[in-house]
Amino acid sequence: MELESDDVGAYLPGPQAVLEPTGQGPLDGLTFAVKDLFDVADIVTTGGNPDWARTHGPAAGTAPVVAALLAAGARMAGKTKTVELAFGITGENPHHGTPLNPRVPQRFPGGSSCGSAAAVAAGYVPFALGSDTGGSVRIPASYCGLFGIRPTQGAIGLAGTLPLAPSLDTPGWFTREAALLERVGAVLLPGEHGRLGGPLLAVSEVWANAEPAVAEVLRPALGRLAALFGPAVKLSLVPEGIPALYRHYRAVQGEEAWVSHGAWITATKPGLSPAVAARFATARQVTPAEAAAGRAMREVLQARLRPLLAAGAVLVYPTSPAPAPERTASPAAQETLREATVGATALAGLAGLPEVTLPAATVRVPDGEAPVGLSLVGGFGRDRALLALARAAAGELGLP
Amino acid sequence: MELESDDVGAYLPGPQAVLEPTGQGPLDGLTFAVKDLFDVADIVTTGGNPDWARTHGPAAGTAPVVAALLAAGARMAGKTKTVELAFGITGENPHHGTPLNPRVPQRFPGGSSCGSAAAVAAGYVPFALGSDTGGSVRIPASYCGLFGIRPTQGAIGLAGTLPLAPSLDTPGWFTREAALLERVGAVLLPGEHGRLGGPLLAVSEVWANAEPAVAEVLRPALGRLAALFGPAVKLSLVPEGIPALYRHYRAVQGEEAWVSHGAWITATKPGLSPAVAARFATARQVTPAEAAAGRAMREVLQARLRPLLAAGAVLVYPTSPAPAPERTASPAAQETLREATVGATALAGLAGLPEVTLPAATVRVPDGEAPVGLSLVGGFGRDRALLALARAAAGELGLP
Repeated sequence: MELESDDVGAYLPGPQAVLEPTGQGPLDGLTFAVKDLFDVADIVTTGGNPDWARTHGPAAGTAPVVAALLAAGARMAGKTKTVELAFGITGENPHHGTPLNPRVPQRFPGGSSCGSAAAVAAGYVPFALGSDTGGSVRIPASYCGLFGIRPTQGAIGLAGTLPLAPSLDTPGWFTREAALLERVGAVLLPGEHGRLGGPLLAVSEVWANAEPAVAEVLRPALGRLAALFGPAVKLSLVPEGIPALYRHYRAVQGEEAWVSHGAWITATKPGLSPAVAARFATARQVTPAEAAAGRAMREVLQARLRPLLAAGAVLVYPTSPAPAPERTASPAAQETLREATVGATALAGLAGLPEVTLPAATVRVPDGEAPVGLSLVGGFGRDRALLALARAAAGELGLP
Repeated sequence: MELESDDVGAYLPGPQAVLEPTGQGPLDGLTFAVKDLFDVADIVTTGGNPDWARTHGPAAGTAPVVAALLAAGARMAGKTKTVELAFGITGENPHHGTPLNPRVPQRFPGGSSCGSAAAVAAGYVPFALGSDTGGSVRIPASYCGLFGIRPTQGAIGLAGTLPLAPSLDTPGWFTREAALLERVGAVLLPGEHGRLGGPLLAVSEVWANAEPAVAEVLRPALGRLAALFGPAVKLSLVPEGIPALYRHYRAVQGEEAWVSHGAWITATKPGLSPAVAARFATARQVTPAEAAAGRAMREVLQARLRPLLAAGAVLVYPTSPAPAPERTASPAAQETLREATVGATALAGLAGLPEVTLPAATVRVPDGEAPVGLSLVGGFGRDRALLALARAAAGELGLP
């Protein structure tokens, strides 16, 4: 399915970046879209904000990840909308317009890689590039019913990408099919060896963090994955609690976000949406002690999780605690959901571990059936093995 | 040539990381060594300092760049010595011993990737991984008579690598042959398309920064490269001067180095060599205004160089202003040389551009013939094209 128009508003208004393949390879014949956080030579990367676009010139080079996809045979269809400077998870952008969620149009698409998720979910392209700092691929994938990956922190270079919090930023991508998620990974990820054999560890704090209806629709998947791993083992791995993870994540991310953009914000006084402006205001107030505590928590999580996962274990839990919120949700309700959502995505994020989300279920909502994702988290640098596993898991779950 | 022993002291004392290939591919049958700044699962990454090793546990995962080489068919022979925390360019390490420079044993091997350069120059391995923040691959390659590459900033991920200054750190590698430099790049670099067609731009400030004897032995290479590019064009591209580049580099690097390691240094009070301790003390004193000016200079350089190089131009200049200094050189003489050396490597470093150094000549010194490298700098993300060009250039220069 490939639509002619952009009914959901996934693409940026105005001239699009359409690039022909520069080579032949495993992505021959495929088309992709790119979040407007990645540079394309001679085009201004807007970062979702008109004042950013106004104060920055055309990119002098193309991000290597984009160039690699073109060289592998794929065609770039255009640039997609993003939350301003990638700082938000609902996908809202008052300047360019918020894309529709093709699955539940009265609800947010999720962000910050909102346009890329919407473009894939609408069938405009088979895959799209996004980026993920605190969930910006995983959350829209969950909300739009897509496969998505946040790779191991630092497995793929970020050259030519607008930063938010460099120690947390990663590229990522969306597909409707598990096999293609893996195929794109074979182009972008470093080579590796070996398989992930389990066991499957259900992280109790993240399951408890999910709304009961979400946990309920996802729980049957654990039974079906037993064919691959044996029965899932329920385990407490975040005794600090999800709210503590959120606080530590916010401190690490906030400090870096202000380093990345504080000078520009102070000098330019850009027109930011109230929500994004508030997030930067909070980022500015992070104290050195809070950031140091956040970094210390990263090391604690890495020391706790990496050995376990190096032995082949795989974490499993709901990608987001809830389906996409309604576009009419109050700011306060959005903020409450944001803390619960980012607290959970912060687990793999702070630990630097790869996470794949599968469109495993839907929950009944007043306006239809809203998708929710199931996440698999693998060991450091085991991204290709995790993608192979996700494909096998998709088969067990009857997903494409 | 492969020696049985480690006469030059390239490898770390004690248990080495010897890893068999995990797959087959373009590096079948080749062996490599790895600077001890890259993680190998279950082994402590020492970073060249015993107190770092004492205060850090075994790595829970292998750096993806190392895993990718193993998966491509290569065998890892061991871990090599590094300047402590990669903060120095002579290659000196009082804890583990400073490797010999196999070409001029009374002189430093260059650093910080000293052991990797020495291992390749001695013929122990055909290639080795290093890292380059301010010249730590380019300088030892120049001093030891090797090919070396510092890729585009951020083209290759740095997962599992001990940081020094993250916005400047890059992996890199050494070989004795241009074709192998390119072959390793085909495994580690993202795919890309196209060739670099010139013209060849000789950056006058970097040529003037070199010792006359170095400029004199390298100048004939420009004539021989005319077969590829037409005559080199002499151009002023650093009107600020090399000392200004050094100051800006030092500010950007110093601020980040202190963020990376200040807390550990303050808490641990590690036994650092006087030279490295002095560098961290200087790093600590970088003011926010100095760092901001340094970052602004990066943007100025990028805006100046990237469009020029995006059109296919290639910069050419001496990699280091002098051959390797004698091991008996005074600290003051070393510091003077360091400023001139890092001021020149800072050009590509601050601009984030890929640089390949070729072992183009030697200069007569009292103790023999000391190698000096000639650098080619290409456009952002044009690493593979630059490697192909370096192979062609090596052919014109009669190099292996």
